[in-house]
Amino acid sequence: MNDYAEFADRARRAQAAMAAADCDWLFVSHSTDLLYLIGFTKRPSERLALLLLPREGRATMVVPGFEVQIFQPYASFFDVIGWEETEDPVAKVADVVGAGAGQTIAIADHLHTVFTLRLQAALAGARYMEGNRILASIRMIKTAAEIDHLRGAAARTEDALASLFAEPVSGKSEREVLRFLHNGLTERGLELSGGGIVGAGPHSASPHHKTGEKRLADGDALVIDFGGGWNGYRSDLTRSFHVGEPEEEFRLIYRITQEAQQLAFEATRPGITTEQIDSVARDYITAQGYGPAFIHRTGHGVGMDGHEYPYLIQGDTTVVEEGMVFSIEPGIYLAGKYGVRIEDVVAVTADGAERLNHYPRDLQIVD
Amino acid sequence: MNDYAEFADRARRAQAAMAAADCDWLFVSHSTDLLYLIGFTKRPSERLALLLLPREGRATMVVPGFEVQIFQPYASFFDVIGWEETEDPVAKVADVVGAGAGQTIAIADHLHTVFTLRLQAALAGARYMEGNRILASIRMIKTAAEIDHLRGAAARTEDALASLFAEPVSGKSEREVLRFLHNGLTERGLELSGGGIVGAGPHSASPHHKTGEKRLADGDALVIDFGGGWNGYRSDLTRSFHVGEPEEEFRLIYRITQEAQQLAFEATRPGITTEQIDSVARDYITAQGYGPAFIHRTGHGVGMDGHEYPYLIQGDTTVVEEGMVFSIEPGIYLAGKYGVRIEDVVAVTADGAERLNHYPRDLQIVD
Repeated sequence: MNDYAEFADRARRAQAAMAAADCDWLFVSHSTDLLYLIGFTKRPSERLALLLLPREGRATMVVPGFEVQIFQPYASFFDVIGWEETEDPVAKVADVVGAGAGQTIAIADHLHTVFTLRLQAALAGARYMEGNRILASIRMIKTAAEIDHLRGAAARTEDALASLFAEPVSGKSEREVLRFLHNGLTERGLELSGGGIVGAGPHSASPHHKTGEKRLADGDALVIDFGGGWNGYRSDLTRSFHVGEPEEEFRLIYRITQEAQQLAFEATRPGITTEQIDSVARDYITAQGYGPAFIHRTGHGVGMDGHEYPYLIQGDTTVVEEGMVFSIEPGIYLAGKYGVRIEDVVAVTADGAERLNHYPRDLQIVD
Repeated sequence: MNDYAEFADRARRAQAAMAAADCDWLFVSHSTDLLYLIGFTKRPSERLALLLLPREGRATMVVPGFEVQIFQPYASFFDVIGWEETEDPVAKVADVVGAGAGQTIAIADHLHTVFTLRLQAALAGARYMEGNRILASIRMIKTAAEIDHLRGAAARTEDALASLFAEPVSGKSEREVLRFLHNGLTERGLELSGGGIVGAGPHSASPHHKTGEKRLADGDALVIDFGGGWNGYRSDLTRSFHVGEPEEEFRLIYRITQEAQQLAFEATRPGITTEQIDSVARDYITAQGYGPAFIHRTGHGVGMDGHEYPYLIQGDTTVVEEGMVFSIEPGIYLAGKYGVRIEDVVAVTADGAERLNHYPRDLQIVD
C-alpha cells in the first residue's frame, strides 16, 4: 500500500471512469476515498484539503499550508499546493480548475457542505455530479491483497465473538456485552470506529437497535452485529443466539433466515445482479410466509468502509464481478417478540463466492 | 440532556436564528449538530436521516423505516417519518418541504454530498445556504452544564498526560507515547475519536505532524496535542516539553509562546472580537521577531466537536460572549529544528475568562 505505482494506477482507473462518465474533474476530501487514492487521510476538517483529479494529466492537492510537508510523501500522482491560514482555499481550487464554465465536476462524499456550497458559488458555470459514481466503480473491485486484509479482519472478529461465550452472558447488559466485544477487537489489533449492535429480547427485532442497559435473561433472543478494521479494511459480522431454550417460532425463523442466507450465497457469482441476489433471499423468505418481516436490503459492500458499494437491494442492477466483497445478511423481525439476522461477508470469485466468515451459522443456545 | 424542554428550547433558538438569517428550512443530518438539537446521532450513513426544521412550527425527521422506533424516544419537537428501503428518501423530504421554489434552505455540515446534490435537484427552485451560520450561533454559547462537561474532559486529560512522565519517555516512539495517552484517556472514561499528535525533535516544528515511529532521545523537543470526550464534550490540550537540556533558542521561543498565550488569555473577555485575541498573541510574537514562525491561527472553539466555532483568526470579527469556549494555542515553529505550542481551553465569563486547563505551563524538562 506504500507503492506509488499502485496509487498512480488507481488514479488512472479513476480517470478512465471519469472519461466514461463524461466528467472533467473529481474532487476528493478527507475520507476513505482519499485514503484509497493517495494512501493517506485525516478525518473531515474545517480546513479544506481537496484532491483535484482532472480527466487527463497530473492532479493537484490543495491543503493547509502547514500540512504541505505532511502530504508531500504521498504525492505519487499529484502536486501539493498550500493555502495560508487567512487565505480562501476555495479560491485556490478555482485557480487550478478555472472558472468551471461548461465543466462537469464530480464531488466525492464527506466534503463538508459549506465547501460544496462555496465551490458551487465559485465555479458557478459547472455541472455537479456524484463522485460516488466514479469512485465506487473502482473501489468495488478488490485486489487479492485487499481481500486478504478483509479475511484478517473477519477472522479476528470471529475470535472476539467466540471469546464472549467463555462465561454466561445471562445477567450482562447489552452495553456490557458490546464493550466486551469491542475490547476483544482492540486486543486483537483491530481499529474501532463506533457502531456495533447488541439487541436482547424484543430489541433483537429492531435491526439497528441502540445498544442499551437491558440485561440478558433466560428466554431472550440475542442479535450481535459488530466489526472493526484490520490494515484499514473492515469486518462486519452478525450472529443471532438464544439465551436458554427458544420457542418453536424462533427456531423456525432462525432456520428460514439461515436457509435464505445459504441460498443467496450459493447464487452469488459473476454475472448475476445485486438485485437478483436480494431476490433469492427475499423470495425464499416470502415463500415461507415471512416476507413482510424482512424489512431491509440483503447486504452491502464491505471494504475500507463498513458500508459501501455495491448494495444488494431491489432496484440496483449492478452486475456482480470477481473481486467484489459484500455482506449477505437476511433477517426476520417480529416486532415485540424477537428477530434473527445472519451475516457473512463474502468475496466473489471467478465462478462463485468465498465466505470470509466461518463462525458457525447453526443456532447456538447460550446461557 | 434527556430533557425534552431543553431540546425544544434549542430548536426555538435555531428557529430564531433562521428568522434572522431569512432562512426557511434547516436540514441537519447525523452529526454533533443533530446530537445537540435532538440528543441523538449516529455516524453519517448512506441511509438518509435528516431533520427538517422549518422557520416556524413543528419539525419533521425523515429516517430509514426500520429506525423510526429508534428516533421516537427523541422526538421532542418533531415528528418522525420513515422511508422504506427501496423508496427514495429525497422524495420524502420533498413531500415535507414542497417544491422548494423561492425558499432558502440551510444545510448543516456532514450531509453526504450525494444527498446535497440530490436535494438540490429535487428542490431546484430553492436557494441554499450554509447551515453552520445558523447552528454555530447557538452552539457557540455554552450553558453551565456544558462547561462542566468540558471541565471534566480537561481535568481527566491532564491527569492522563501527567501519568506519562511516571517513567522516562526517552526511547519510546511517538506512536507508543500517543497509544499510552489514548489508553490513559480510555481508562479515565473518555471517548476517543482519532487524532492526537506526538511530534519529537524536528517533527515538533510541524503543527499537524503525523505521529510516527521516531524514538524520543535526549536533545529532542516534544509537542503533545491530544484530547477525548467526556459526556460528549471534548478536551484539547497541548504542551511542549524538552527531553534533556534544551539549547538557548528553544528556551527563548518557549518563553515567548508562553507569554503570548498568557497575554491572549488576559485579553479574553466579552466584547473583544476573536480576531483581536489572535492579534494580541500574534503582535507579541511578531514584536519578539518570530512572527513568520507562528504559522496558524490562535485558536478554535471546543465543545461537542474538537474544532468548532468560533475561530480565533484574522478576518473573523465574531464578538466574544460569555459562555463561549475556545482554545488559545499560539506556537512558534522553526523548520528542521523544533517547535513549541501551548494550548489551554478557556471559557469566557462575565468579565474575563476561566482556564479549563491547569496543567503547568512552565517549561518541563523530561527524561
